Amino acid sequence: MPILTLSEMAPDQEADVFVLMTSKEELTTRTGKPYFKVGFRDGTREVSFPIWDNSPWAVECRDGWTPGVFYKLRAVYRESNYGAQLDVRKIREVTDADAADGFDPAMCLPQSRFDPGAMFDELTAIVEQRIERPPLRKLVESILQTHRETLLVHPAARHNHHAFAGGLLEHTLSVTRTCVYLADKYAEYYPDMEPPLDKGLVVAGAILHDIGKVHELAQQPEGTSYTAEGALIGHMLLGRDMARRAAAEIDVDAETLLRLEHLLIAHQRLPEWGSPKPPMTPEALIVHYADDLDAKYHMMVAVLRDDKTPGPLTSRKNVLYQQVFRGGS
Amino acid sequence: MPILTLSEMAPDQEADVFVLMTSKEELTTRTGKPYFKVGFRDGTREVSFPIWDNSPWAVECRDGWTPGVFYKLRAVYRESNYGAQLDVRKIREVTDADAADGFDPAMCLPQSRFDPGAMFDELTAIVEQRIERPPLRKLVESILQTHRETLLVHPAARHNHHAFAGGLLEHTLSVTRTCVYLADKYAEYYPDMEPPLDKGLVVAGAILHDIGKVHELAQQPEGTSYTAEGALIGHMLLGRDMARRAAAEIDVDAETLLRLEHLLIAHQRLPEWGSPKPPMTPEALIVHYADDLDAKYHMMVAVLRDDKTPGPLTSRKNVLYQQVFRGGS
Amino acid sequence: MPILTLSEMAPDQEADVFVLMTSKEELTTRTGKPYFKVGFRDGTREVSFPIWDNSPWAVECRDGWTPGVFYKLRAVYRESNYGAQLDVRKIREVTDADAADGFDPAMCLPQSRFDPGAMFDELTAIVEQRIERPPLRKLVESILQTHRETLLVHPAARHNHHAFAGGLLEHTLSVTRTCVYLADKYAEYYPDMEPPLDKGLVVAGAILHDIGKVHELAQQPEGTSYTAEGALIGHMLLGRDMARRAAAEIDVDAETLLRLEHLLIAHQRLPEWGSPKPPMTPEALIVHYADDLDAKYHMMVAVLRDDKTPGPLTSRKNVLYQQVFRGGS
Amino acid sequence: MPILTLSEMAPDQEADVFVLMTSKEELTTRTGKPYFKVGFRDGTREVSFPIWDNSPWAVECRDGWTPGVFYKLRAVYRESNYGAQLDVRKIREVTDADAADGFDPAMCLPQSRFDPGAMFDELTAIVEQRIERPPLRKLVESILQTHRETLLVHPAARHNHHAFAGGLLEHTLSVTRTCVYLADKYAEYYPDMEPPLDKGLVVAGAILHDIGKVHELAQQPEGTSYTAEGALIGHMLLGRDMARRAAAEIDVDAETLLRLEHLLIAHQRLPEWGSPKPPMTPEALIVHYADDLDAKYHMMVAVLRDDKTPGPLTSRKNVLYQQVFRGGS
Amino acid sequence: MPILTLSEMAPDQEADVFVLMTSKEELTTRTGKPYFKVGFRDGTREVSFPIWDNSPWAVECRDGWTPGVFYKLRAVYRESNYGAQLDVRKIREVTDADAADGFDPAMCLPQSRFDPGAMFDELTAIVEQRIERPPLRKLVESILQTHRETLLVHPAARHNHHAFAGGLLEHTLSVTRTCVYLADKYAEYYPDMEPPLDKGLVVAGAILHDIGKVHELAQQPEGTSYTAEGALIGHMLLGRDMARRAAAEIDVDAETLLRLEHLLIAHQRLPEWGSPKPPMTPEALIVHYADDLDAKYHMMVAVLRDDKTPGPLTSRKNVLYQQVFRGGS
Amino acid sequence: MPILTLSEMAPDQEADVFVLMTSKEELTTRTGKPYFKVGFRDGTREVSFPIWDNSPWAVECRDGWTPGVFYKLRAVYRESNYGAQLDVRKIREVTDADAADGFDPAMCLPQSRFDPGAMFDELTAIVEQRIERPPLRKLVESILQTHRETLLVHPAARHNHHAFAGGLLEHTLSVTRTCVYLADKYAEYYPDMEPPLDKGLVVAGAILHDIGKVHELAQQPEGTSYTAEGALIGHMLLGRDMARRAAAEIDVDAETLLRLEHLLIAHQRLPEWGSPKPPMTPEALIVHYADDLDAKYHMMVAVLRDDKTPGPLTSRKNVLYQQVFRGGS
Repeated sequence: MPILTLSEMAPDQEADVFVLMTSKEELTTRTGKPYFKVGFRDGTREVSFPIWDNSPWAVECRDGWTPGVFYKLRAVYRESNYGAQLDVRKIREVTDADAADGFDPAMCLPQSRFDPGAMFDELTAIVEQRIERPPLRKLVESILQTHRETLLVHPAARHNHHAFAGGLLEHTLSVTRTCVYLADKYAEYYPDMEPPLDKGLVVAGAILHDIGKVHELAQQPEGTSYTAEGALIGHMLLGRDMARRAAAEIDVDAETLLRLEHLLIAHQRLPEWGSPKPPMTPEALIVHYADDLDAKYHMMVAVLRDDKTPGPLTSRKNVLYQQVFRGGS
Repeated sequence: MPILTLSEMAPDQEADVFVLMTSKEELTTRTGKPYFKVGFRDGTREVSFPIWDNSPWAVECRDGWTPGVFYKLRAVYRESNYGAQLDVRKIREVTDADAADGFDPAMCLPQSRFDPGAMFDELTAIVEQRIERPPLRKLVESILQTHRETLLVHPAARHNHHAFAGGLLEHTLSVTRTCVYLADKYAEYYPDMEPPLDKGLVVAGAILHDIGKVHELAQQPEGTSYTAEGALIGHMLLGRDMARRAAAEIDVDAETLLRLEHLLIAHQRLPEWGSPKPPMTPEALIVHYADDLDAKYHMMVAVLRDDKTPGPLTSRKNVLYQQVFRGGS
Repeated sequence: MPILTLSEMAPDQEADVFVLMTSKEELTTRTGKPYFKVGFRDGTREVSFPIWDNSPWAVECRDGWTPGVFYKLRAVYRESNYGAQLDVRKIREVTDADAADGFDPAMCLPQSRFDPGAMFDELTAIVEQRIERPPLRKLVESILQTHRETLLVHPAARHNHHAFAGGLLEHTLSVTRTCVYLADKYAEYYPDMEPPLDKGLVVAGAILHDIGKVHELAQQPEGTSYTAEGALIGHMLLGRDMARRAAAEIDVDAETLLRLEHLLIAHQRLPEWGSPKPPMTPEALIVHYADDLDAKYHMMVAVLRDDKTPGPLTSRKNVLYQQVFRGGS
Repeated sequence: MPILTLSEMAPDQEADVFVLMTSKEELTTRTGKPYFKVGFRDGTREVSFPIWDNSPWAVECRDGWTPGVFYKLRAVYRESNYGAQLDVRKIREVTDADAADGFDPAMCLPQSRFDPGAMFDELTAIVEQRIERPPLRKLVESILQTHRETLLVHPAARHNHHAFAGGLLEHTLSVTRTCVYLADKYAEYYPDMEPPLDKGLVVAGAILHDIGKVHELAQQPEGTSYTAEGALIGHMLLGRDMARRAAAEIDVDAETLLRLEHLLIAHQRLPEWGSPKPPMTPEALIVHYADDLDAKYHMMVAVLRDDKTPGPLTSRKNVLYQQVFRGGS
Repeated sequence: MPILTLSEMAPDQEADVFVLMTSKEELTTRTGKPYFKVGFRDGTREVSFPIWDNSPWAVECRDGWTPGVFYKLRAVYRESNYGAQLDVRKIREVTDADAADGFDPAMCLPQSRFDPGAMFDELTAIVEQRIERPPLRKLVESILQTHRETLLVHPAARHNHHAFAGGLLEHTLSVTRTCVYLADKYAEYYPDMEPPLDKGLVVAGAILHDIGKVHELAQQPEGTSYTAEGALIGHMLLGRDMARRAAAEIDVDAETLLRLEHLLIAHQRLPEWGSPKPPMTPEALIVHYADDLDAKYHMMVAVLRDDKTPGPLTSRKNVLYQQVFRGGS
Repeated sequence: MPILTLSEMAPDQEADVFVLMTSKEELTTRTGKPYFKVGFRDGTREVSFPIWDNSPWAVECRDGWTPGVFYKLRAVYRESNYGAQLDVRKIREVTDADAADGFDPAMCLPQSRFDPGAMFDELTAIVEQRIERPPLRKLVESILQTHRETLLVHPAARHNHHAFAGGLLEHTLSVTRTCVYLADKYAEYYPDMEPPLDKGLVVAGAILHDIGKVHELAQQPEGTSYTAEGALIGHMLLGRDMARRAAAEIDVDAETLLRLEHLLIAHQRLPEWGSPKPPMTPEALIVHYADDLDAKYHMMVAVLRDDKTPGPLTSRKNVLYQQVFRGGS
């Protein structure tokens, strides 16, 4: 039997697949018939279907299958009016030995389209080239290196945007690139601004603007959730703590640190988005706009990709709470 | 010549007074006549009047008198249609020797009606009696003792409420007293709440809720102003930093510290008042209400005291942006 | 057969119980199978389950069972994946004779944890002790006595807080106690306020602040609903009417009555919460804060008690529209 | 010497005029020169000018002239860069005997362009013809007759719209006329609405919608101000009180009274405009729109009349807080 | 077999009917049983019911029946707990020949209660009589005539108000009538307003205020939807385009055209309702109020007609997002 | 006598200067002394001073000097407590002959720091290179060429940002450059977006986003003001008209034109900023962010340049309505 990924399976094809169980709900039909609704996924496809109580898997499903666990399934993939389903033939938990057949837990989670290692390297290269003053550069490097492993797999959000492994890194890199452009542009554009634009600080702020999300969000196989400190304090303040902690061991001058701290807590601009202060420096202003555009653009791409409404306009039931124009009318 | 306070002087009385110069503005009348408008104050009375350029003090005023400096004046106090004035006969800067005549810089600043030392002692007594767990108690004690000297003289705000020396302490003590009452009340009222109300945390939160103002506001003889970190970060986050710093040396359990940090940043409740999170614990809810009432009540008292509008209603031009009913119609 | 309360029944236990029928809906499954969904409750437990059309009770259920009627049931209590159910063996309407077996309609409604009579007595004692001027005291006493029977059983709201028999009295007493504390505190704190705080008025306002709810809400066995005048006029204005009516026969001075009327309509403070005027007197300010805290605290207690979300945080789908921190993470 | 009105005087003309003193302020120039700024008016013109302390009137002005008092002046009217002024030659208080020369206090106040008596009569005629059910008709008649004298001279507001004697009556009549039209129109338009539109109630509501202003506003020669109950309770609730009081002696059915009360408190529609409830009946909806249009239209007329900004657009500093297009560009 | 309309059929009656198929959804019960849910309607009644896969119509339904197509059905009309249903005996598509039996596509769509031709004629008569200046009159006439066929059948909205064939015309006529009244009234009321009220412009604006809806909304048998330009640009701007296009061929003076354009884009007044400018002319103000009242009144009529909540108050789940008082309590 | 610019004059220096008269107000001191306050400016300095009525220029000033007229002055430049002044020795209107001495009206207006011609050329070069499809390119080119003369001198606003000659061009070019970067970036970043990002449309939208300002604002020597159509319609709609007019003669496909029109009216995003629709396409989203950042950044630069408040923070009285951090504390 071939080993495929779930995403590769064609309708009515039988194959072995490595999948993550994402959900198991005990439900009952209106006529009182009990069943379990179970979900399995790999990195890009998720299927969800019922196990009826007269299914041969009914008992095993109820007693043994556990969301958050990886399984090797032999199954036939079906598409019908009821959505995609799996006709399960065999099922067992993944073992260490499956690595030999190519199993890797990361293959069952949605992933950034970009290679995390390469993104991380690009980010550190930007730090190297763009943050001239050693203390600030060391501060950013130190935080990046400390959290390298987390950043390679962390999402940027639970649902809204870049909600996949490596999403935080992907978003951060994109914002940083835009900020490099904008910092160069506006520094040249207003050469007499006093004090002059601190281009290194713009870059440092771009890289660290969402860094607190490594503590705000907990990534688990079943999905991303808020940590207690994430819910009670929030990533902007947690990110500022990280900058302060790193600065305690590096000789960053007080005003630069203060400007960085301000940028981190002000980058969402509006109080109703959680920023206790609006951007009060040119550096904070630039990072806010680069960040906000990147998040909104990503959302719009996702809406255009996922919306199934016929016609030239999407539904307004999406993360943007508005219609998007698809065209082709 | 008797030494009086400025507040004690009767119309047309001549006396020696110790005063603080609060302002000096170089102005010109519409007809082009230049003059200086100068202000002097003691703890409860402030006068502001012109020094014309044909005054015998004109040159000395322009070249020597400096806002923020304490002076000994010999002067006649006048009240006229032009407001209260001083007819200056002699003027010199205060010297150390004036202490013998009763000079004390504090006598020239508005003061709390209550003795700062006694208020501070009451606060520490409450800590002693009401915060049972030693780590949390030590955390609060340590912060209070570290900032004792500042607290004895710090205001609670620039303008809005308790804007005078000792005002922060006065407001903090009042909020703490109310919180002691409310914590006892609601702990008794809902004995089965799970987890139970942390009465010690309510008291700790009440005492520390505005502690960040010692870094947010700078008190100077000429008036209170925002520091750079006050404007860019704000007292709620600065207060949380103080709690975290103190906790770093004391074995406070992680959840208690998290709840305290949350309380400090959430105590103003609304995002537009600067709280990035709403109160998400019963302890934070209590402190918010006790604090908000105390501030608003103080404002209403001040409006009733200061408003000069005739009739049963005050003007709406005040810190509350609304009319207050004085009655007696 | 033992007579138990519904709340006392253990799974699979059979017993006789007195219950209130709370709902009966005629539904049909997606496959076209008709059934009735019926609900029964006592003071603390409510169960809801289907009567299929092949049930022996099908005809009687359709033709005879009536929401709002009390029944004596013999039934087996079951807990299953479909929720709690009753396997009905016998059913008849309650008769007067059942009182001998302990039936009391109040036992089938959710109740305050406190004895209504004792709460009422405490409230009248506070009136006696705390409202010094006879006319105002008489006004409050007269309203309390006129509505005594209603107050002993009235809820404070349909859903939001204190939504149970005696809930209005429980909330009123709690607010009044806090107001007694705050009135004493602030009267002492600002002895020179002009006019001085009217402590009796604070207490009168606390007691009467929600009194209009006796006309705004109609309590019926099936649930609490808004009356026509409740929906069209609202409890704040209706409460003011009650105060004016009572005052018409008592010699309350005009300004005190006006201050009381203002307090009643202003106690929710914000226009979007229905107050046409903000609190414009110190007395109204105190009652607003005591009331708002008491309601919000009650809601938070209820959220902590009822929320079933796993982890340290509750869902945000609750009366507060926000997460509450439960901790224990 | 001819007796003219102030409005009739031509530049440099001398005449005798009856005027109301509207203001007297004791001021001082920047050079310390004291003077009084005094204001006098008749129904349509107001002048305001200084009495210098070397004026022959200086002493009499300071000691005797009193705002709110009517005077007979002999004066020359001047127009200059300093605005209109009066060169006072003689001045004495008005006496009863001046009535023979045509003095009437009303001639010194801004007046409705329409005859108050005629407006009142038209209003009562509409009641007669348009409110068919006797109890409701009597209720409205009774309130109108009770307040006839006040209505003939009362303004509709302090500043915003119809802020002149008879203004309340003028606004009420205009709203009522529109409501007669709209009630006929929509009753015919939706003949099957259930319950049918109560046309008499629309008219009653139109007539009484602002009636509470007779208690909310106090009209004095110096200007209109809010009464204590106006500020603390507001005209919508005070008007409802008047309707309830009148109904107490007339056999109005309960639902009609409730609908009328609702209409009175809901007619401003938005909570931020003081309505605790939105219009929940068709009758209330109609009165709201007729009222709001009439007020806004009057404001726009006034802005077009009073604004002095050159060009096709008015300033945005006016009661509408927006520009109005005058055109003619 | 008699030919009836669907609305005329009595329970259990068999008849031939001409109907429009409005929906066909492929669904599955929770037990996995597939079925189609189909909808048919005439002008006032709509029924929706399942075609089970064991129905004799199952195959034909799946393969042939098409929403948006007109059918002649022979069926028995049933009312049951499952709602109204049709027991289909025969079904075929409507043919041209059916016109002989009275078929007309319009009979299957909800219709204005008024005759479209008569409404259109009244509108053109108003133009004739009320718009005095030939260029403006021609502009309005030209737009009306160009879109006559569309106007006879266009709705005014998808859901909110006048959402039926002829609804745009019905709403436009009603608003225009009110505007004729108000223009006469206010022109007479403020004869000195400068510039004077342009009564012809009020009428032109009333007629054209929603004309852009002929391009914003696409009416199809299955329902009304937004066009691409409707969603991206909106009817106010599209209506202004129509006025500009028509004016290009008529000698309308520039200021009149500008005032008309402004009126069209400002008639919803609030930015959150899509008006980029508030009404800045008296003409725009009048049309806004007449329009807003007409829409809201229509909604309230519909809520009173359609709401099924027992008791004196409707639900708040309706187009007005508030309760409406039905009375009869 | 040397011919200098006003900006070049040193204190007490005498010179000949070409200036624009910007204001003349007839005022009076509080003591009744009449004078004229007059203003003159060149491109970067403006002075404003009194001409007393005993000045030798008093009569000529009153009768002859006219705001908006260019003058050649011989004067001594003074700086004093009263601000900068000119001691006028000679004054006459500028004549054609003065061109020989270097007079150019543009030298008296504030100017962009960049050469307008070069900016215009860069913009057209971008059009050439970046808008690939000929119809869209022609549309943009045609609008640019038609308005070339205006664009070389037009401001972007009255006060808020880029409020100087060439300001509209400067802002447009800056936004366009950012958009070129962002369009390339996001097109590469999301290569699979469907439909793909229309990079040419982003550039076209950037160039035209504010083009309607050439009709919204009227630039006059005395200052920039709104035109009638600017105030009543606004630049977003006027810009859309320009695009439509240009498209009428070019074969732009309907959907591209619709997307461009949408972008122009949606580019301010929020209804309260005048956009009737939010950005519903990726192209509109990009232009919105590039535009908003450029405007806000320019404002922040101006606040940092112009604010005179001592200390590390600016005042909050500025175009951003918030403090900006200057640092250097």
